[in-house]
Amino acid sequence: MVLKVAHRGQIPPFIVMDVMRAAAKREAEGASVLHLEVGQPSTGLPEGVRAELARRIMDDTLGYTVALGLDGLRSAIARFYRETQNADVDPARIAITTGSSAGFVLAFLAAFEAGDRVGLAMPGYPAYRHILTALGCEPVLIPVGPETRYQPTVEVLDRLDKPLDGLIVASPANPTGTVIPPEDLQALVTACGERGIRLISDEIYHGITYGPAAVSTVGMAEHPVVVNSFSKYFCMTGWRLGWLVLPPELVRPVECLAQNLFISPPALSQHAGIIALDHREAFEGNIQRYARNRRILLDGLPAAGLTRFAPADGAFYLYADVGHLTNNSLDFCARVLNETGIAITPGLDFDDTDGARWVRFSFCGSTETVATAVERLTPWLEGRKSSGRAGL
Amino acid sequence: MVLKVAHRGQIPPFIVMDVMRAAAKREAEGASVLHLEVGQPSTGLPEGVRAELARRIMDDTLGYTVALGLDGLRSAIARFYRETQNADVDPARIAITTGSSAGFVLAFLAAFEAGDRVGLAMPGYPAYRHILTALGCEPVLIPVGPETRYQPTVEVLDRLDKPLDGLIVASPANPTGTVIPPEDLQALVTACGERGIRLISDEIYHGITYGPAAVSTVGMAEHPVVVNSFSKYFCMTGWRLGWLVLPPELVRPVECLAQNLFISPPALSQHAGIIALDHREAFEGNIQRYARNRRILLDGLPAAGLTRFAPADGAFYLYADVGHLTNNSLDFCARVLNETGIAITPGLDFDDTDGARWVRFSFCGSTETVATAVERLTPWLEGRKSSGRAGL
Repeated sequence: MVLKVAHRGQIPPFIVMDVMRAAAKREAEGASVLHLEVGQPSTGLPEGVRAELARRIMDDTLGYTVALGLDGLRSAIARFYRETQNADVDPARIAITTGSSAGFVLAFLAAFEAGDRVGLAMPGYPAYRHILTALGCEPVLIPVGPETRYQPTVEVLDRLDKPLDGLIVASPANPTGTVIPPEDLQALVTACGERGIRLISDEIYHGITYGPAAVSTVGMAEHPVVVNSFSKYFCMTGWRLGWLVLPPELVRPVECLAQNLFISPPALSQHAGIIALDHREAFEGNIQRYARNRRILLDGLPAAGLTRFAPADGAFYLYADVGHLTNNSLDFCARVLNETGIAITPGLDFDDTDGARWVRFSFCGSTETVATAVERLTPWLEGRKSSGRAGL
Repeated sequence: MVLKVAHRGQIPPFIVMDVMRAAAKREAEGASVLHLEVGQPSTGLPEGVRAELARRIMDDTLGYTVALGLDGLRSAIARFYRETQNADVDPARIAITTGSSAGFVLAFLAAFEAGDRVGLAMPGYPAYRHILTALGCEPVLIPVGPETRYQPTVEVLDRLDKPLDGLIVASPANPTGTVIPPEDLQALVTACGERGIRLISDEIYHGITYGPAAVSTVGMAEHPVVVNSFSKYFCMTGWRLGWLVLPPELVRPVECLAQNLFISPPALSQHAGIIALDHREAFEGNIQRYARNRRILLDGLPAAGLTRFAPADGAFYLYADVGHLTNNSLDFCARVLNETGIAITPGLDFDDTDGARWVRFSFCGSTETVATAVERLTPWLEGRKSSGRAGL
C-alpha cells in the first residue's frame, strides 16, 4: 500500500537554498563562483569570541538549557535594548530561540489559530508565507512597491476586504532593504493594537543600516512580537540563535511550545551569544564593509543597464529590476550562474508574481567578491541588452 | 484591545523541564540536589572530540549548511547503519535535524494532515502528543501495560474503533525502557504498511540496552520514518542534533519544510556529529556506567518498598509504581525534591491518567549520584510506608 504524503507539508522550496546547492555543485566541478546569493556574512565570529568559545567547549558539558534560554543571555539582551533603544524590557519577556526560524514557528503557533489570516508584504522573506502555510494559517500577500517604499502602511491595511489576525513587518526588509520610519512604525503598532491584529516585527537586520538606524517596536507597545537573530549583525548564521520579545500573555504558551518542539536552543550558541553581545564593537567593521559593497553595486550596475532598485536603506541586499531582460528570473539567475559564475537569487523567491522580473544581490561578502562580480557581470549584461529580451 | 492567544499554542508543559527549573532554583538557594529527573548523560563529549571541535571553531566560518545537512554527516550515518545494522541506507534518504525534536516536527508536517489520527503508547514521551496537538493532529493514546511489555502490538491496533493515519513506536521506550523484539517490530512494520499507517520509529535510545540490542526498522522496509538523535548515546543533548531516515517520497517535502522552518541544523554540531561517529568506542564506557546505575536502583529500591517497575531493557530510565504511596505523582515528586533533594520526574509527564501513580528515575548521572539517591531515599520512603498513603 502506498502511504500518503501530507498536502500541507508540500510547501515550495526556499529558492535561495536551491541556488546555494547549484552554486556548490559548480564549485565542486572546479568552477569559481562569486556568492551574492545568500544572506550570510562571509566573516564569522571575531577571533576573540572564538577563542573564548573554544575554551568553553573544553570546560563545559553543554547540556540542555531551560527552554527559554540561559538567564545570562536573556539579561544581556535586555541590556542591549537599554543601550541601543533606550528601552526597558523585562528579561522574563525574552525567549531565546533556535534562530529566528524557531522564533517564527513559536510565535505563529502561540499567536495564530489554523485558518487565521496573516498579512505580509510582497516582496518579502519567503519563509514567512511558507511557515504560515505549513502551520495552517492563511498568508495574505500585500503587494507593495515604490509608492510605499515597499512596506505595508495603515492605509493599505484599511483597504483589505477582510480583516487580518496578524501582520508581519520587517524593517530593514529582505529583499528590499527598506526601513520603516519610526513614526510610520508607531502608526502601524497603534493601528494593529486598535484592530486586534497581532503585529510580528521582524528586526533581524537591525544594526545594519546606511542612513537612520532602525527603531524597534519594543519601546512603542508591549503587544507586538519582536523577532531578532544573531545571524546577521553578529554573523552567527550557522549557530542558529535568535530571540523573541513577547507580550506577557504569550510567554507561558511559548515556553510550553518550546519545551515540547525544541527542548532548548543550542547551548554553545547561547554562550556565543553572550560573548558576542559583550563584543559589539568588534562587528562594526562589517557594517563599513557592507556600505562599501553597496556603493560598488549602486555605482556599477547602472553602467551595465540595471537602473531600478528598491531603496536598500539597510540589510545587505540590493533588489534590482531586470524586467527589460527577462520575465523568468529563475532561468535568468541560472544563466547568470552558468555563464558568469555569479550566484544571485531570483526575485521569485520573494514575490511569486512580479518577482519574475527582479533579482536580489546580497552584498555581505568580501568587497573583492562584489567588485569582481560587477566587473564580470557588466559585459555579460551588455551582451544581453543588445541581444534583446527575446534572447533570454 | 486585548489581543488573542491561540488556543492551539496552549499545550501542556514538558513537566520534566519544570522539575529541572525547580531543582535549579533549590540549587541556587544553596541546597544539594541529586539529578535523577532529566534524560541527559552527565558526561558530555569525550575530550578528544572536544579538542577537534575547539580547533574547528578557530578555523571555520560556520555558516549555514544545506537544509538536509552536511553530506559528510549523511554518509557517516549511512556507514553507521551498515556497521551496526548491516543495512544499506541511501544517504539521500537521511535528513540531519536540529535534534530529534525538529525531526518530529518535520516528519509530522510531511506525513500527516491536520486532523489525522496518530497512535502512540501511553505512557510515552510527552512531546509526541503535544507536538501533534500543536500541529493540529489528533494524538490517539493507546494505554499499554505489562501484558504487552508497555508497547503497542498489531492486536492492539486492530482493536481500535477508528483507523489510524500514523503510529509512533519507541524502542527502547521512554519512560519504560522496553525494547520491542525484532519479530514484533517487523510485524508492526508490515501491519502498518498494509493498513496505510505511516510508522514513526523513534530510535533515539539505540545503543543503550542491557540485554539484546535494539533493531532498527531501516532494514525492514522503506516506508517507516526513523527518528534518531545524537543526544543520548553520543551525550550531545545541548548540541541539538538528530536525524531522520525518510521514505523516498518524503525527502523533498522534508527538505522544503526544513529550508523554511529551520534553514539548517547548527553547523558546529554537525561537525561534532561526524567526529563523534568516528569515535564510537569512546562512548561505550557510559553504557557500562548506566548498567551499574540501573543495577543499583533495581537492587536498592525494593528494599525501600518500591517493587513494581517497567522492564528497563534499555534507555536510562526506571519507571516505578508508587501507587501505594500517592495518587498525585506531581505532589509526590515535589515533596521528594523538597525533603530529600532528589529530583525525579512525575509519571504524569508520560501518562496523564495512570501516571499519577508512577515516577521515572533517570540513571544516566554518575554512579555516586544514583547510589547516594538510593541511600537518601530509602529512609524517607520507609517513613512514608509507615505513615501510609493518606499522609501524602
